[in-house]
Amino acid sequence: MGLFFTQNKLKGIMAKRDLTPKSESMSKWYTQVIQQAKLADYSPVKGCMVIRPNGYGLWEHIQQSYQPMLSAMRVKNAYFPLFIPMSFLEKEADHVEGFAPELAVVTHAGGEELTEKLVVRPTSETIMYHMYSKWIQSHRDLPLKINQWNNVVRWEKRTNFFLRTTEFLWQEAHSAHATQAEALTTMYDALESYRKISEDFLAIPVVKGRKSESEKFAGAVVTTTIEALMPDGKALQSGTSHHLGQNFSKAKAFNISFQDSSDTLQYVWQNSWGLSTRIIGALIMTHGDDEGLVLPPRIAPTQVLVVNATKDQETLDTVATITDVLIQEEVRAEANTEIATSMGWKINDAELEGIPLVIVVGARELASGKVSVSVRYNHEKISMDIATLGQTIPKLLEDIQLALFDAAKQRQEALTFEASTFDDFKKIMTENRGFIKAFWCEDTACETAIKEETKATTRCLPFTNHEGDVEEAHGTCVHCGKPATHTWLFAQAY
Amino acid sequence: MGLFFTQNKLKGIMAKRDLTPKSESMSKWYTQVIQQAKLADYSPVKGCMVIRPNGYGLWEHIQQSYQPMLSAMRVKNAYFPLFIPMSFLEKEADHVEGFAPELAVVTHAGGEELTEKLVVRPTSETIMYHMYSKWIQSHRDLPLKINQWNNVVRWEKRTNFFLRTTEFLWQEAHSAHATQAEALTTMYDALESYRKISEDFLAIPVVKGRKSESEKFAGAVVTTTIEALMPDGKALQSGTSHHLGQNFSKAKAFNISFQDSSDTLQYVWQNSWGLSTRIIGALIMTHGDDEGLVLPPRIAPTQVLVVNATKDQETLDTVATITDVLIQEEVRAEANTEIATSMGWKINDAELEGIPLVIVVGARELASGKVSVSVRYNHEKISMDIATLGQTIPKLLEDIQLALFDAAKQRQEALTFEASTFDDFKKIMTENRGFIKAFWCEDTACETAIKEETKATTRCLPFTNHEGDVEEAHGTCVHCGKPATHTWLFAQAY
Repeated sequence: MGLFFTQNKLKGIMAKRDLTPKSESMSKWYTQVIQQAKLADYSPVKGCMVIRPNGYGLWEHIQQSYQPMLSAMRVKNAYFPLFIPMSFLEKEADHVEGFAPELAVVTHAGGEELTEKLVVRPTSETIMYHMYSKWIQSHRDLPLKINQWNNVVRWEKRTNFFLRTTEFLWQEAHSAHATQAEALTTMYDALESYRKISEDFLAIPVVKGRKSESEKFAGAVVTTTIEALMPDGKALQSGTSHHLGQNFSKAKAFNISFQDSSDTLQYVWQNSWGLSTRIIGALIMTHGDDEGLVLPPRIAPTQVLVVNATKDQETLDTVATITDVLIQEEVRAEANTEIATSMGWKINDAELEGIPLVIVVGARELASGKVSVSVRYNHEKISMDIATLGQTIPKLLEDIQLALFDAAKQRQEALTFEASTFDDFKKIMTENRGFIKAFWCEDTACETAIKEETKATTRCLPFTNHEGDVEEAHGTCVHCGKPATHTWLFAQAY
Repeated sequence: MGLFFTQNKLKGIMAKRDLTPKSESMSKWYTQVIQQAKLADYSPVKGCMVIRPNGYGLWEHIQQSYQPMLSAMRVKNAYFPLFIPMSFLEKEADHVEGFAPELAVVTHAGGEELTEKLVVRPTSETIMYHMYSKWIQSHRDLPLKINQWNNVVRWEKRTNFFLRTTEFLWQEAHSAHATQAEALTTMYDALESYRKISEDFLAIPVVKGRKSESEKFAGAVVTTTIEALMPDGKALQSGTSHHLGQNFSKAKAFNISFQDSSDTLQYVWQNSWGLSTRIIGALIMTHGDDEGLVLPPRIAPTQVLVVNATKDQETLDTVATITDVLIQEEVRAEANTEIATSMGWKINDAELEGIPLVIVVGARELASGKVSVSVRYNHEKISMDIATLGQTIPKLLEDIQLALFDAAKQRQEALTFEASTFDDFKKIMTENRGFIKAFWCEDTACETAIKEETKATTRCLPFTNHEGDVEEAHGTCVHCGKPATHTWLFAQAY
């Protein structure tokens, strides 16, 4: 008996599941696979989704993987109020202009109309910096680096599971520094931490770079970003790290100042950076296939499912022993020997949910000291010695992790193009989508025109190193032909 | 040199700190110690507080301690929307009546008035059970047990750090079962998990019991509770576990039903249970003293602070070595060898923040292979061999944990009284406060009269075992003299 269903049987079940092949329509597949794998569901509140245990488990593993990086940057977790007085947002002009159209507003509470309307936080700069102003007095209080894992609300007209929801979960870290140099270093370090969580854990290759003036965060001096490319050729902004300069600290209403070591009054330099449940959307699209999710081992809540093909006691004991051995080797292994569900359904569910490996223990193979190991991402079946699973399985999981990253990297490279004329640019965008590298004059009017004609936006000016250096060159703008000194990355975006 | 400041020096600093002695006014001390130890701060939004890193660290350790108990009960984490349509709350009559006065309401979003007002969740029964109704079809879908770690909002008129805030953090677990017996077992298991987190981790002794009709959760059939007694003789409800019966599942608007194994339509039996940041208030009050916080080792974010008394290299190296050894023994140890802060300030801060142990490494003691270990809760100083710290410190931390619980237990017992007449009852409430055990007829009118005259409420009918059995007896109601069959626990409450 084949480990996964034969093609015909599989199709039968898939038909029952009604999972549109990813290759046919990624957007249909995306919505269906999320519901069928029980990652999330629609909620009765427009634009808000329910994150079900399978989806929340992914977020918990992203949190557990990213938290050590925050701690290494000496960022401490805290919690600030959900509600922000409307007047606070107005303290920084660009900030309120950016967020005003997306706000949810509490006007009544405790049975009474409120004298000042409260905004449900779209982000916490203003309420946090109000407190920073109180807490920071001396250079000894710096740097101050605080992170929140919380929920925020931005009223969206068009929503999509994980990628764009009215309420979403994220981390938002906010730092205050004595010098701009220190703040900038921290901004690049935070961006690098995002590259790590994305590439090293989620196996999603990204391009690091700087946002254009029109694409930067409302209130920032510089916004840096990690940009991923989905298999359909659309880019997904996956995490952003901002330098806010002294925009907030010098705003009269905040006034975040400190006495430096020579007793001179200075204003702090600030950063903020955030990564949200949106990245789960990137994870799903990057690795999934026609049969369902494919989870990279380092982020998979369950890395190995161990099931029994036969019901004899020896087989059941072996399932338990293998599971224990793997758990001791710090593999997230789980046994499923329930009788109520057939083995076929267990394997089929594991496939849909993207569990990296399924080990099937059956009496026949057991006689020769072997089990059948099924690899989710490439559908390979490997017969492996039971005695050495404690060594071979962790190694196999690491190999899968790297293979998934390499495959995604190759797809990204195959979808990265260069355009020197606007005709080429339009042709690529129409025929292939993907990333386009092109000279741009850095004039917002040109950027807007390109967007109007091709739906492509500037994703970033790519960095050549950790410190945010960029390649200088001499060329002409792909749109207007004026002199240009940088090659920007363009794409249609989620 | 004394390890902590001498009494005079200490008073000088305390005066500077302006910390009212706990014995003089617990309420003043409470507010001050929270701000001075940087656990929390007032926010610009009325009734909402900012939980600073020191306070949030406590919550993180409570989460880390409680999460394994949830997992053992096979409860999975998930996330449901913050916003609930107003009509959802109205689906269960008692539920909406209980929460209506405390709701915060979003009327405008995205620049428009909403057609249906949205409530900011005060608790998630209604939105979760709407989804449960969709997800539960067959007995194979049961039991369903989902938990959220989230923020909720209940508009409060009088607020106090941690104890009562408009917005607070908590976990809310919600289970659905095929039988009432299974639901009731789960309710008692959840209550026992609260006893464990409270007594075994926070070192706060509690009484488990059942709430009276008037004190139970809005929508519950039975509410069980853990009740702690604060040093000022006031009780603090620290966690509640409810059986909701079929109140929600049979409500027409929810209709959570399933086909049982003989294909008969049944309604599920439900529970919910929650524990909030409120318990941090109990932790502070139970163990703190005139010098500041006292944290039980099992919940302290930092269990041991290692500081240097002298600046020679050997001392600095020893600080690092001791810290590493302790971390290897899974002690949460931290070194502080910063030059900018004096040793006196470091020790003083550690005392204020309640760090269980401070190890001081100085050249003189080092010569004889010893360090000075200072115990926060009883101010003892112990000279200990460096070579064996890896064994002696974990043991000492466990001893402290048990000693703090025992001391709290003794205080609770000393403040637990019996009253057979209402004159006695009033006298005790006036002179001592504390828990009063008394017969009550279980008539709500009597309960209300007792509250009006003494400010004391029924806290619970204490359980005699895990399964919720209670002592049956024959007596007369302490207030009206009518026959009564149970001795209830009364107290003034936070």
